[in-house]
Amino acid sequence: MIKILSDSPGISFGLGYFCERFGAAKSTVSEDLSIAKKTLQENGLGRIITIPGAGGGVKYVPCITAAQASEVQNTLCEMLRDPSRIMGGGFLYTSDIMFSPGMTEKMASIFAEKFRDSGADYVATIETKGIPLAFMTARLLNIPVIVVRRETKVSEGPTVSINYFSGSSGRISKMSMAKKAVEPKTKAIIIDDFMRAGGSLKGITELLAEFEVEVCGIGVAIAAEENNETKVSDYTPLVYLRSVDEASQMIDAIPNSRIF
Amino acid sequence: MIKILSDSPGISFGLGYFCERFGAAKSTVSEDLSIAKKTLQENGLGRIITIPGAGGGVKYVPCITAAQASEVQNTLCEMLRDPSRIMGGGFLYTSDIMFSPGMTEKMASIFAEKFRDSGADYVATIETKGIPLAFMTARLLNIPVIVVRRETKVSEGPTVSINYFSGSSGRISKMSMAKKAVEPKTKAIIIDDFMRAGGSLKGITELLAEFEVEVCGIGVAIAAEENNETKVSDYTPLVYLRSVDEASQMIDAIPNSRIF
Repeated sequence: MIKILSDSPGISFGLGYFCERFGAAKSTVSEDLSIAKKTLQENGLGRIITIPGAGGGVKYVPCITAAQASEVQNTLCEMLRDPSRIMGGGFLYTSDIMFSPGMTEKMASIFAEKFRDSGADYVATIETKGIPLAFMTARLLNIPVIVVRRETKVSEGPTVSINYFSGSSGRISKMSMAKKAVEPKTKAIIIDDFMRAGGSLKGITELLAEFEVEVCGIGVAIAAEENNETKVSDYTPLVYLRSVDEASQMIDAIPNSRIF
Repeated sequence: MIKILSDSPGISFGLGYFCERFGAAKSTVSEDLSIAKKTLQENGLGRIITIPGAGGGVKYVPCITAAQASEVQNTLCEMLRDPSRIMGGGFLYTSDIMFSPGMTEKMASIFAEKFRDSGADYVATIETKGIPLAFMTARLLNIPVIVVRRETKVSEGPTVSINYFSGSSGRISKMSMAKKAVEPKTKAIIIDDFMRAGGSLKGITELLAEFEVEVCGIGVAIAAEENNETKVSDYTPLVYLRSVDEASQMIDAIPNSRIF
């Protein structure tokens, strides 16, 4: 039962499902669920929640402790400090981290914990490098992903586009979203891999507003340290990238100590 | 233990890890592992494999039965048959499917089963819609993802690019990959969301060859039905899209009956 529940985080199962699946009586399933609940909780592996009533059932909710989160943040900082990541123009190569199933899953579990009660109906991101992180977060929250595109594709059907100022490329860029992608009057969190001045995040927020989707949280894996030019105010980075010094090959990355 | 093992598919854990984590004797852990093994197997939920020897341990290997695979294929076909997916030019809107955590996870489990013994070191894909599927497959196989880009980004460092003929856009396009992305003399499987004539898949294969990476398998969620113009020969689609008729609003999609 633990396996089935934890494979589908956030999805509610009726007791009857387990009775049928294992050919067991309701009382046996109930009893085993109590044991499962206790085991997971005692070992910091997540929670099993019972929803009472006719439409009720049980569901698994992953959780991460402050100590586990801080371990993930420290690992990320250590990975970022590797001087071979330094590319021209002070950019860091991070594709290996953002496309690693293990690391993105761990980072996503922090965002899932942070935004569990945000009321989000979607996780929004912009292509490309933030997609796995957004996707794993959405998986833990059991909600779909919206990927904002940089170019319009014919297979997306009618789209809405906006122009925004991208700090990393230093020019005006375009982003677009399919009209079919969301329902109006909903909420979304935005998850992305990197934030410099917040131009893309501000752009995504404005684009979502065109669809009557309210942004109820922003999480980024890596953020350049805060400054007055930051275009969004309320966001949660896992780590701050304070400086990348090409001459001395020094990368200064520190964990964000105020995530929760 | 089931929870810990199945959260990290393909990753080997020493018995000592569980002894320490649960404060239990090696004999108790061993005994419980046998029970876990039996339980998972009996319920078609995957396998726990013991690797003997000094560097050994236990690992969880997800598996999917032919019946489970066929259920996923049928669900996908049914979803595709929805006429509201028809976009201009005979294209189908599939972003909702490809960005749904539940569906991609199920489709990925078929590819993971198919390519488990392929010897792949990487899962390669091209941005954007195939990323979640490639990523979930990689997660189940415990190997990293390589995302081939359509535009070169400064944060990728030096890249190698090729030109290829894209059947869906009907023109020559460019794809590129960072030099840092792979080790030479390795193998990769390619996973993508959609294949028309196989131009992108052939392009990815050629690009990988530049890096001395051999393609040892190709999986696509949806393929247009085979014809003489197909540019790659050995690929595994989950479903065939036989026709999209805009006038009658009919979409003909059938499961691929020869996956395994």
